[in-house]
Amino acid sequence: MRLAIYPGTFDPITNGHLDIIERGAQLFDRLTVAVTNNLSKNPVFTVQERMDMIRGVTSHLPNVEVDSFSGLLVDYAGSRGAGALLRGLRAISDFEYEFQMALVNRKLAHGIATVFLMAHEKYTYLNSTIVKEVAKLGGDVDSFIHPLVKERLRQKFEKP
Amino acid sequence: MRLAIYPGTFDPITNGHLDIIERGAQLFDRLTVAVTNNLSKNPVFTVQERMDMIRGVTSHLPNVEVDSFSGLLVDYAGSRGAGALLRGLRAISDFEYEFQMALVNRKLAHGIATVFLMAHEKYTYLNSTIVKEVAKLGGDVDSFIHPLVKERLRQKFEKP
Amino acid sequence: MRLAIYPGTFDPITNGHLDIIERGAQLFDRLTVAVTNNLSKNPVFTVQERMDMIRGVTSHLPNVEVDSFSGLLVDYAGSRGAGALLRGLRAISDFEYEFQMALVNRKLAHGIATVFLMAHEKYTYLNSTIVKEVAKLGGDVDSFIHPLVKERLRQKFEKP
Amino acid sequence: MRLAIYPGTFDPITNGHLDIIERGAQLFDRLTVAVTNNLSKNPVFTVQERMDMIRGVTSHLPNVEVDSFSGLLVDYAGSRGAGALLRGLRAISDFEYEFQMALVNRKLAHGIATVFLMAHEKYTYLNSTIVKEVAKLGGDVDSFIHPLVKERLRQKFEKP
Amino acid sequence: MRLAIYPGTFDPITNGHLDIIERGAQLFDRLTVAVTNNLSKNPVFTVQERMDMIRGVTSHLPNVEVDSFSGLLVDYAGSRGAGALLRGLRAISDFEYEFQMALVNRKLAHGIATVFLMAHEKYTYLNSTIVKEVAKLGGDVDSFIHPLVKERLRQKFEKP
Amino acid sequence: MRLAIYPGTFDPITNGHLDIIERGAQLFDRLTVAVTNNLSKNPVFTVQERMDMIRGVTSHLPNVEVDSFSGLLVDYAGSRGAGALLRGLRAISDFEYEFQMALVNRKLAHGIATVFLMAHEKYTYLNSTIVKEVAKLGGDVDSFIHPLVKERLRQKFEKP
Repeated sequence: MRLAIYPGTFDPITNGHLDIIERGAQLFDRLTVAVTNNLSKNPVFTVQERMDMIRGVTSHLPNVEVDSFSGLLVDYAGSRGAGALLRGLRAISDFEYEFQMALVNRKLAHGIATVFLMAHEKYTYLNSTIVKEVAKLGGDVDSFIHPLVKERLRQKFEKP
Repeated sequence: MRLAIYPGTFDPITNGHLDIIERGAQLFDRLTVAVTNNLSKNPVFTVQERMDMIRGVTSHLPNVEVDSFSGLLVDYAGSRGAGALLRGLRAISDFEYEFQMALVNRKLAHGIATVFLMAHEKYTYLNSTIVKEVAKLGGDVDSFIHPLVKERLRQKFEKP
Repeated sequence: MRLAIYPGTFDPITNGHLDIIERGAQLFDRLTVAVTNNLSKNPVFTVQERMDMIRGVTSHLPNVEVDSFSGLLVDYAGSRGAGALLRGLRAISDFEYEFQMALVNRKLAHGIATVFLMAHEKYTYLNSTIVKEVAKLGGDVDSFIHPLVKERLRQKFEKP
Repeated sequence: MRLAIYPGTFDPITNGHLDIIERGAQLFDRLTVAVTNNLSKNPVFTVQERMDMIRGVTSHLPNVEVDSFSGLLVDYAGSRGAGALLRGLRAISDFEYEFQMALVNRKLAHGIATVFLMAHEKYTYLNSTIVKEVAKLGGDVDSFIHPLVKERLRQKFEKP
Repeated sequence: MRLAIYPGTFDPITNGHLDIIERGAQLFDRLTVAVTNNLSKNPVFTVQERMDMIRGVTSHLPNVEVDSFSGLLVDYAGSRGAGALLRGLRAISDFEYEFQMALVNRKLAHGIATVFLMAHEKYTYLNSTIVKEVAKLGGDVDSFIHPLVKERLRQKFEKP
Repeated sequence: MRLAIYPGTFDPITNGHLDIIERGAQLFDRLTVAVTNNLSKNPVFTVQERMDMIRGVTSHLPNVEVDSFSGLLVDYAGSRGAGALLRGLRAISDFEYEFQMALVNRKLAHGIATVFLMAHEKYTYLNSTIVKEVAKLGGDVDSFIHPLVKERLRQKFEKP
């Protein structure tokens, strides 16, 4: 039974993340989407809100579950019995950061491999930050995120 | 009558920006240099000061005008009737960010193309941040910015 | 009257090229697609065949014409009275080569600017070489090239 | 039963390839190392010699087998019933080529994912070409290739 | 007598820095490791603590000395009579920043060359930030930093 | 007495090479420009012609000498008693190739460091290949190469 962890901030989950999750769910027996509880990034959504949104948009994938973690990713993965970390690659800037993390994680935990899937070309230049910027300025984010996520973003950025 | 928008923070305008403006002014009938009113970047100069400096260094270019905007760039460009966004490319790191913005803008507004000009090789590694750092430490910025801009920077960083 | 030159090998023209041509035709009064007569690249199609295919797929664009040239690009552009060279940018490897050519061309002919348009993300990783490789091995190239070009490729690679 | 294909030229197999194979063999139920029969690359070793060397250095991995193919990779993978293509990533230049191939393969065969593993940092700058160059000039290639491969290279480059 | 300056934040010094220092000490008659007194980076260690750690791990190198500076690097280097600045290169992202600084420094002080050494491949993806992140989360940083530095980090991150 | 080797094909030497040589000559006691006798590159000039041109344009540098070598670079450098290899860096594509060679050379000869100098920004996109292409087509190469080299190129490309 092969378990992989797909870690990230997911603030919020985009269609690019979802594309990686859907393909990762075919490669592994089980896939855990693990939300990082990293306070230094000043997320717009709480960990609970981010997990709810991921659950909402992955409900059609029976072997995908959602969790959160704090501390070292490799410690979390080890405690879960995961054999692989899943990451999406979009562009060169991803590449260097991802390589750094994969090499450090390989040093910290020899038995856990980092497996990369390439983002669909439609999502090459998509990330959560740009979605939030466009949404905040009232732009149309329909092609970037799930309607469920769009509704949550609208509530966050709505003037009271 | 073809109008292009050259958007940016211009905090302050460098000789690299000016090079792009001069060449852009030859390509289009009119060119609007549009200062972004983006509070999150903590600019050294106010929008008004930045517009004044741009006007000062582009006074020899009759078809260039200076404006400011807030909100989505594509909305501003649409409201002005612009058919193109102008951007300078210097190095690889520019490239990825510019591609991301161009693709998002293309999604948000199909009719507006992003047109890139390559920075002169003299300005390949020049940006406003490094100019400010060098000026703050008392270094010589004569080859990076216009004398008019240098005088304004001197006033900003002068101890009272 | 602003004329731009879009130079290339076009062996054969892909949907990525066509995307650049369609957007370039909106930016300039006239756009000349200029096929390089460069023997060292061992093209599959003759210059005449390549020009015919480009004419075939751009017949809906009244301000686009097709030509060929040998010798220095800037000399050809100068003799045509062009004020700009048009190039598409797809990925990092393009970027360095294009920068090199643009800087050299700027040195050789000060008055002619190189204008870059970003390839549509659908065509980020598309080029003529990969189209020929896939076609030669019998793969489906429908999403990469125009039916007219596909038919010509089929004829070239057909066993007699 | 998940089968992955690890395609390549392997002319000859290096320790970097072997590192990818060893880790890929843990991720999938079965892994087929598939030697490309690509005449245009002018290989030093025949397909049979390359397959023999791969078999020699992977004999400790029971779920790894060696094969060769010609034609389109996705057709071969489909005919074998593989759900994934395995590729190693070392550096930026790999990245662009691999992305291009993965996107084209995704277009050609929707059901087959390309899975990337990161090369060990020891092998970041290692490839078959540099091994052959160093060996041809009499340099020491012990840290780059398996002794079995080294002996075969010695025979190839030995003056008669 | 050739003196080189190796400037940096060194918050804290890693094995990657030490590798550059050891090789730089062989290239030049004297090498000064110069800690930047840059408040904007919010260092974990004071300048004095950083200098102490560097002295501790370079005590086996008789021609290496440790200093600190504020203000422009080229002014400091000039006042010390240095003919060269030494920098390590690890990856692409380093490369662009380092080029920018080297070009600016070349403009600011014509007589001082920036000399680059390539980081050992073991340290390609190592930097002080990742060491601090891993240490803070309780991970094992033994292969990244000297035991002396590890002990200091432990004291910093220890709960009182 | 510190000796460095600056290896290359130099077919022909450009102003970018000369810039690296001039600065390298200040860093080391002696600098040997070493022409690679690499038949596979199909050079336009013979090794002897290339050495003559380098001698011609470096005659003002008393501590620079010109040599040629075949075989492994590190073997040549070792036989000459050199402690360093000198290389110029221009752009990203250089970077990866140079890193690969530096790492391999470090593996092959531990005692010889590769030292990089950054090309002047004027020469960022200059190389011998583009000089030859422009010269062959009759373009003006005055800003790229020394008059002495220009004359030799003219003779080579002159129709009989």
